[in-house]
Amino acid sequence: MRDRHLNKMPRGGSATARYEEDPENAWNCGSWFEYLLIVILSTILLVGVLVLTLFWVIFYRGGFAWSENPELQFNLHPVLMVAGFITFSGFSILLYRLCRCLKHIYVKLVHMLFHACAIPCIALGFLSVFDSHNLSEPPKPNFYSLHTWLGFVTMGMFAMQFVIGFFSFLILLCCENRTYNCRATMVPIHASFGLANFMMAIATCVTGLVEKERQMIGGDSGDTAISTRSSEIEHYIMNSLGIVLVAIGIIVSVAVRRSNAPATAKVYVTERI
Amino acid sequence: MRDRHLNKMPRGGSATARYEEDPENAWNCGSWFEYLLIVILSTILLVGVLVLTLFWVIFYRGGFAWSENPELQFNLHPVLMVAGFITFSGFSILLYRLCRCLKHIYVKLVHMLFHACAIPCIALGFLSVFDSHNLSEPPKPNFYSLHTWLGFVTMGMFAMQFVIGFFSFLILLCCENRTYNCRATMVPIHASFGLANFMMAIATCVTGLVEKERQMIGGDSGDTAISTRSSEIEHYIMNSLGIVLVAIGIIVSVAVRRSNAPATAKVYVTERI
Repeated sequence: MRDRHLNKMPRGGSATARYEEDPENAWNCGSWFEYLLIVILSTILLVGVLVLTLFWVIFYRGGFAWSENPELQFNLHPVLMVAGFITFSGFSILLYRLCRCLKHIYVKLVHMLFHACAIPCIALGFLSVFDSHNLSEPPKPNFYSLHTWLGFVTMGMFAMQFVIGFFSFLILLCCENRTYNCRATMVPIHASFGLANFMMAIATCVTGLVEKERQMIGGDSGDTAISTRSSEIEHYIMNSLGIVLVAIGIIVSVAVRRSNAPATAKVYVTERI
Repeated sequence: MRDRHLNKMPRGGSATARYEEDPENAWNCGSWFEYLLIVILSTILLVGVLVLTLFWVIFYRGGFAWSENPELQFNLHPVLMVAGFITFSGFSILLYRLCRCLKHIYVKLVHMLFHACAIPCIALGFLSVFDSHNLSEPPKPNFYSLHTWLGFVTMGMFAMQFVIGFFSFLILLCCENRTYNCRATMVPIHASFGLANFMMAIATCVTGLVEKERQMIGGDSGDTAISTRSSEIEHYIMNSLGIVLVAIGIIVSVAVRRSNAPATAKVYVTERI
């Protein structure tokens, strides 16, 4: 029942008023189990996807280089994009929703810092694929495939979200109380678009993976072109990478939704502005 | 402020107690605008994606056939799967969250009927691709690519969700009050898994689309293999289809999240069991 005890909560949702104040709002065993399961599973998946991408690129695609070797320069693209758009952004979203031990302003700061760490990864990842397309013989066209279209929109949305979040945080530092209503209106919009952006990042990664895989095993005979045992193993690694990416999309969306579902305590803790 | 007026609401969330009872819970202009925007936009996208798929298959892939022509039999697969997993399921999810004029039990019935309409589409779509793989020369392997793995999990989850929802509805018809707690526990799980399933369906469609496109334009030279004007137009149609699919994923997840965000009225209306 989410309609009980809500009136006991302070209106502004300040960081000092904690959910433990109301003993009836304490989590039960099931809530804690669910919470820990989400935290552990998402950590494993978010780190795992980066490790799996690194493993794939280093052992099956020949490692890294910069513009002296466009083919190897391309390899930076999946690793940096997965690091920026999936691992850092994923941790940032989950931390904001699930962190229950820090003052709320610090949670916001960590949320912003994680997203800030994603920016150089994304910029370098974008540059590396741009360079490797232009420097390869013959040059490959940019912004032609579905993956590139999705990626372009995802990057634009990410930049917009970061700028809005950053200035909203600055405003919060300057005058907290007078901007409350404005920030309160923006929170659900920022959250919805943030989740949408994360879903788009997942879709972009998955389409890029499928494109790369099809490019590698070649045209119409693709389904049956299993040439060597090594390429077969690589195929399964890439499929697993796709599955892990989709699983991350699901666990993040479930975590963001579920974290305000079962107990009123959660509604309060996670809906604060 | 979501903590006001919640205590005025009836606990069980029965269909007869409506949000209009509390004048302070009435929607403002912005809420109605947002609501109508989501309804109109999602209807256009959900119908549009099916029309676009039909257009692509009929005008660029040669139309339909059954087992007498495995190549054309394959064409049933994208159309039926988009109809079942995207159009019918999408309308079903949105109707459940957004329908504000029917008694809640009828909303549930319509939700179930839409999902029931999806079942024959999915079954036929699955059969058609299975047949076309086995009957083609040489037979293509089944369950090899990322698309097929994702599709398999999506179908399994869909079946599980339908069975659980169906029996939960039957229980509701038999003994509404005694099963309230049990059903109340299941609602957020069913909703979360339902949304996750829809996201997986989107990911499956997009990977299938990219796979098909790469198969068509062929191997490593894929990026530059624009042979005719017709195939270039087809490429843009397929890219647009991918963009529409991702847009549907975003609007559905935003609609499901946002519909309980701005006003307490919405919390009440959409969180009822």
